[in-house]
Order: sequence, then C-alpha cells, then structure tokens
Amino acid sequence: MSSTNMFSVYGRMTALPGRRDDLIALLHECARAGGDDCGLLNYSVNTAPEDPDTIWMTQLWVDQAAHDATTRSEPVAAATRRLLPLLVREPEGSYGHAVYVHDRRSE
Amino acid sequence: MSSTNMFSVYGRMTALPGRRDDLIALLHECARAGGDDCGLLNYSVNTAPEDPDTIWMTQLWVDQAAHDATTRSEPVAAATRRLLPLLVREPEGSYGHAVYVHDRRSE
Repeated sequence: MSSTNMFSVYGRMTALPGRRDDLIALLHECARAGGDDCGLLNYSVNTAPEDPDTIWMTQLWVDQAAHDATTRSEPVAAATRRLLPLLVREPEGSYGHAVYVHDRRSE
Repeated sequence: MSSTNMFSVYGRMTALPGRRDDLIALLHECARAGGDDCGLLNYSVNTAPEDPDTIWMTQLWVDQAAHDATTRSEPVAAATRRLLPLLVREPEGSYGHAVYVHDRRSE
C-alpha cells in the first residue's frame, strides 16, 4: 500500500440563503491568502447539486505542518474569520492522510 | 465567479475492522479500471485520523457524462461490486460541480 506525507482536507459549508457565491469567492481568496509557497498543492471548490446554498471543498497539502502553519498565519486567519458570518452553521469536514494521489493532468 | 464543467465526487467509507488496507487497494483499482482516457482527471484516497477503519476519497472528472459512463462500464462496475462486502455500512458522499480547481503542481 502506497502512502504519502501529504495532508488532505475536506470541508462542507452551507451559506446563508443567496450568499453561496460570496462564500465561494471568499474560499478562493482563503486558498490564495497563504501565498504560492505555503505548501497547498491543490484545492477545489464545488457546488452541491442537491442544495443551492451548500458547497464543499478539498485541499491537498504537502504535509500537516504546512497546513497548520498556513491556516494560523494572519492573512489566512483573517480571511477565514470572514467565512463564519456567511454560514448557516459550523462547517463540517474531515482531515486525512493521503494514501494515493493521482493526477492525470500532470502526466 | 469562475465555473467549470468538471464534476467532482467525495465519498467516505468505513471498512470492516482490519480491512481498511484492502479497501484502499480496491479503491485504487477502481480508479484505474476505467482506463487512462476515461475522463478521470485526478483522485485521492485518504485515511481518516479519527477512525482507523475509515477512508475518504475525492475524484475530479472532466464532466458528469464521463463519470456516469465510466462508473457504469463493466470493469469499474465489477470492481465497485467488490467494495460493498468490505464495508460496515453504505458509503456516504456527495457529488459536485467544480467551481474552482487549482493545482500548483502543474504550474
């Protein structure tokens, strides 16, 4: 079984009615706030077809230390603080250690 | 707000005690069973630190049609059928339309 040191994040959030696009834009800002060299390898922001106000996102980090340091850094923490007022409830989600990561676009 | 036609999948599964590694190997096999040109752009399989038997996975597809056709194809369907006997309960998960997908490894 392969294994990597890469650290993965899944999050699911429901915006206040009509605020999903603001939430998406802010998540995109949060993802870039750490800078190009913060260790965030890839991320996606996705709408949920079954719920017009819900999005879910994934992040893949070079390791957990990079994730922890970046999310605590002021630019990212400041952007993240602006998320909660847009949400109906606390975000759900999970962390993970990436066992397989395969990207055909980089072949 | 950017948008793409890309289709994303998040799934979370709990293996029977001690069978997580078999589940991970089979998920890896499922992801390759569609072939290199099936439209599966990237995937990850991740362990869940809070539960030794749980994994979660993400997939990004060129579009929903590619996902639907591939998952119905016999090689993938046959591999997927072998998943359920390894699980404690039905998988959870969600589909999504990717609004933002950013991969720094392909820069």
